[in-house]
Amino acid sequence: MEINGVEIEDNFAEAFSIKVSRLLITAATRKFAKIAATEATGFGSSVIGCPSEAGIDSYVPPTETPDGRPGYTIMICHPQKKELENQIMERIGQCVLTAPTAAVFDAMDADAEKSKLGHKLKFFGDGYEKKMEVAGRTVYSIPIMSGEFVVEETVGFKKGVAGGNFFIMAENQTSALVAADVAVSAISSVEGVITPFPGGIVASGSKVGSKKYKFMHATTNENFCPSLRDECPACEIPTGVNGIFEIVIDGLDEDAIKEAMKAGINAAVKVPGVKKICAGNYGGSLGKCHIQLHELF
Amino acid sequence: MEINGVEIEDNFAEAFSIKVSRLLITAATRKFAKIAATEATGFGSSVIGCPSEAGIDSYVPPTETPDGRPGYTIMICHPQKKELENQIMERIGQCVLTAPTAAVFDAMDADAEKSKLGHKLKFFGDGYEKKMEVAGRTVYSIPIMSGEFVVEETVGFKKGVAGGNFFIMAENQTSALVAADVAVSAISSVEGVITPFPGGIVASGSKVGSKKYKFMHATTNENFCPSLRDECPACEIPTGVNGIFEIVIDGLDEDAIKEAMKAGINAAVKVPGVKKICAGNYGGSLGKCHIQLHELF
Amino acid sequence: MEINGVEIEDNFAEAFSIKVSRLLITAATRKFAKIAATEATGFGSSVIGCPSEAGIDSYVPPTETPDGRPGYTIMICHPQKKELENQIMERIGQCVLTAPTAAVFDAMDADAEKSKLGHKLKFFGDGYEKKMEVAGRTVYSIPIMSGEFVVEETVGFKKGVAGGNFFIMAENQTSALVAADVAVSAISSVEGVITPFPGGIVASGSKVGSKKYKFMHATTNENFCPSLRDECPACEIPTGVNGIFEIVIDGLDEDAIKEAMKAGINAAVKVPGVKKICAGNYGGSLGKCHIQLHELF
Amino acid sequence: MEINGVEIEDNFAEAFSIKVSRLLITAATRKFAKIAATEATGFGSSVIGCPSEAGIDSYVPPTETPDGRPGYTIMICHPQKKELENQIMERIGQCVLTAPTAAVFDAMDADAEKSKLGHKLKFFGDGYEKKMEVAGRTVYSIPIMSGEFVVEETVGFKKGVAGGNFFIMAENQTSALVAADVAVSAISSVEGVITPFPGGIVASGSKVGSKKYKFMHATTNENFCPSLRDECPACEIPTGVNGIFEIVIDGLDEDAIKEAMKAGINAAVKVPGVKKICAGNYGGSLGKCHIQLHELF
Repeated sequence: MEINGVEIEDNFAEAFSIKVSRLLITAATRKFAKIAATEATGFGSSVIGCPSEAGIDSYVPPTETPDGRPGYTIMICHPQKKELENQIMERIGQCVLTAPTAAVFDAMDADAEKSKLGHKLKFFGDGYEKKMEVAGRTVYSIPIMSGEFVVEETVGFKKGVAGGNFFIMAENQTSALVAADVAVSAISSVEGVITPFPGGIVASGSKVGSKKYKFMHATTNENFCPSLRDECPACEIPTGVNGIFEIVIDGLDEDAIKEAMKAGINAAVKVPGVKKICAGNYGGSLGKCHIQLHELF
Repeated sequence: MEINGVEIEDNFAEAFSIKVSRLLITAATRKFAKIAATEATGFGSSVIGCPSEAGIDSYVPPTETPDGRPGYTIMICHPQKKELENQIMERIGQCVLTAPTAAVFDAMDADAEKSKLGHKLKFFGDGYEKKMEVAGRTVYSIPIMSGEFVVEETVGFKKGVAGGNFFIMAENQTSALVAADVAVSAISSVEGVITPFPGGIVASGSKVGSKKYKFMHATTNENFCPSLRDECPACEIPTGVNGIFEIVIDGLDEDAIKEAMKAGINAAVKVPGVKKICAGNYGGSLGKCHIQLHELF
Repeated sequence: MEINGVEIEDNFAEAFSIKVSRLLITAATRKFAKIAATEATGFGSSVIGCPSEAGIDSYVPPTETPDGRPGYTIMICHPQKKELENQIMERIGQCVLTAPTAAVFDAMDADAEKSKLGHKLKFFGDGYEKKMEVAGRTVYSIPIMSGEFVVEETVGFKKGVAGGNFFIMAENQTSALVAADVAVSAISSVEGVITPFPGGIVASGSKVGSKKYKFMHATTNENFCPSLRDECPACEIPTGVNGIFEIVIDGLDEDAIKEAMKAGINAAVKVPGVKKICAGNYGGSLGKCHIQLHELF
Repeated sequence: MEINGVEIEDNFAEAFSIKVSRLLITAATRKFAKIAATEATGFGSSVIGCPSEAGIDSYVPPTETPDGRPGYTIMICHPQKKELENQIMERIGQCVLTAPTAAVFDAMDADAEKSKLGHKLKFFGDGYEKKMEVAGRTVYSIPIMSGEFVVEETVGFKKGVAGGNFFIMAENQTSALVAADVAVSAISSVEGVITPFPGGIVASGSKVGSKKYKFMHATTNENFCPSLRDECPACEIPTGVNGIFEIVIDGLDEDAIKEAMKAGINAAVKVPGVKKICAGNYGGSLGKCHIQLHELF
């Protein structure tokens, strides 16, 4: 299968279950909404070494937010419910309660499980907090030195999907980079997904374990490293490919992941120098969600 | 004392010792250097609830970096040496090793204590890593699927200063916000400091403990909340002030903090509506570094 | 009438007919699409002194563009058809044909009058240009040193509306500024309109003619200048207002202008310190389009 | 000659005399300073079809500006003194006087020729303007509805250099694009120069006249078009090169142009896929300023 002359591998992405929360952060201006959302979702590329996976989902214009101010939806993800709730509390309490003019609302489906974010953060108000309604939602207004901090009483989370992915192979690193960048741009217009790695892009794929350093749980996947082509007889990189980036996607459900993968791949294949799109899996035994590239189109 | 008609309180900021590391992150383009630096320093506003304090210090043009590419210096700070080293390792390993085209160099004084960042990260190379020199620095080049990841063998850290601060009081929230924003802009041109809170700004000052909720370690400082003026007889907010933001600064040393405070205050007082600049302290008994506002000018 | 406690004046904005073209500029990445759109619409605040009015309308994600790449729609406006066509030609020929990876498509209704943009620009190809189809549109592909420049054969223009407006009055300049900024953010999500002034905001309102300098066609409107309140007995500024900014809107039709005014005003009144929204007119005798503020809500 | 494995052609860039003005635009925040500077320098890529060449030179932090606010220096260039003065007047009058919180100062050497910008713009004040001093400079303060507009009485201009240039040839368009982008980043840290084309980059080189369309003054340079390699026996593109971008630089003098070319080339050769750097000239007979690439290093 080819799109725009680029080969689409006949393979599947293997994705996993994860607990996902989705919140809306608004602020006085779009800039400050983005600042709060960015700080709250940083150091959140992978639960392997970060306290959670996190990222910005979508911009929401003031005409569509509960308080009529510009906002961004964010997602925070963790395999364990308890740790997810802890992360919601810490990331919002440290990075949004403190952020200038920010407010926090639930941005999950009505029937999702609820975490008592506002209920807990209200204690910061030391009795001066007030329970009130904003656009039909129950929120707490906590007096702070810059004004008030508004936070919804509960925010939702549910079982979502982590690790949707595809790989962009190009004739050099630069083409792969620009293709990955524009793929992330395209994905950012899809609601219900984040690309948690830096700029949405993974530069360093890994294999499980190590051949040489037995204490390492994961090391570079030498068969996917263009610079090791001559040293690795099992090299899996097609001739003419010298740069590879991966896009990793977490989402509310499989449909959102699929829509994101489709949008991202369609954008990537437009970039000169892109040769092949493939997908990452572990043989299918680890993750229950298998997304066939060819079925996306 | 007044500057541009704005009162400067005769008071001091009380700052603390902290362990500070400083690293340079470069990438193929300025955008991707900033993306890596931003991801690596997110969720890093305060060690009260974040795993460390972290932020971007300065942009470094390609003419001044070891590898001739654009870069940003970042600082990661923690009171405990062991935890600082752990945070350097996690934040760089998760958020920069994975970031497209990124490389990491030491950006600390030559005589600082050293953390073996590259020495440890090299194991990701599974034996394919190579020790080499870039501009006289010992680095490891680790093959990855997008090319190579270059990281300096050791990065420096030393005893620095956390919690340099000043407060901007204005006739409304908006004036205080814009003044805080331009103060952070001014501080961003000072080398050797970060403003770790979201956008460099703190919206919610706190007092130690709680009057009502005994399980809380810190709660809103009601005497500094404009909306509680009528409820709090001990209110410390001058008449005509309705919005307050704080700037918090971490730095390599006291001189850097002072230069940053001076630059920030001088910029803030230019904004229409700003009424007063003051400083935060705990009576002087907790932090050893006392910075008198009046001595800055 | 009040919204969020802010007075909405019972008055109308007086707008004018103007010829409006709308084009879509795509590029390899969102950044380069924006760069081309920004350069092509610069020096375009007002036809009083600029060669045309111009601005960016909306971002269009790659899933919705003819060539599957990210893009921005722009509008170029001029009262005279001939000069409008000249400006389309010059702005696209100088600022988009030269812009990296850019392409240009028509973004106007199918029944609009047509300007032969691509038909004329194709001569730059010196015979090497090729007529082809992209997503059902007739375009020319012109070989250039970076690849090819794709431009649609014709682009549409029609009679639109210029000078939709409202004024934001606030207790200080800073509140008015932030309110204007967030109003422009809100308007940017409305399709079919631009805010041609710098950042979408007008800082300096004028009156026709001059009292003192007879050679001047327009001078500052002293009755709208907060700093001249004491010198001008006819001052029209309410007590407590010390900063005023105007938002000026050009659009495809009156409905788009109205939607933009409504979105902008609703966002502006959320900003602390905003006191009143009013509208600008010349008594109603100059422009045929009268938009009553109270009828927007 | 090679740098980082990239061939540097033994050739020279041919540059021209042009009249250059340099102004500093400050504003309440860095964002609004950039907005005013961007609007004032748009539609300014080349005097062939734009009313002047214009661009942003450098960011100036608040600690270094006359009014203690953040700013950007811009340059406006035109071959004719009279038209340059007209363009300064129109671009500042339409795009900076109208821009929120903006002010304008001279940013040229003290001994440069002077244009009476503030002297003329003051008439907008209709007698309410005031002559005053800011940091030792004579300025006019003109009351406007958002506050005041401050503009220096005179701004300098002098004979500068236009058309400094180099070409980046890469194995595909994407590599050339990223290399051009990072070259422009590097040049932006050099004071006294602008890169007037969109994003600093030229996508479409031209030859004088036309082979086929005699009414055209300039058409695509087919011998520099990768897609025409097989059709043009005189093709000048090296084997393996498939994308070419040019960087064009205007500057205060030859030294600034040289420093910019050196910084830009050094940055471009770091990008994977770049094959060759060359320079553009007309045989040396048109422009008096010949800059040999090999003498830069």
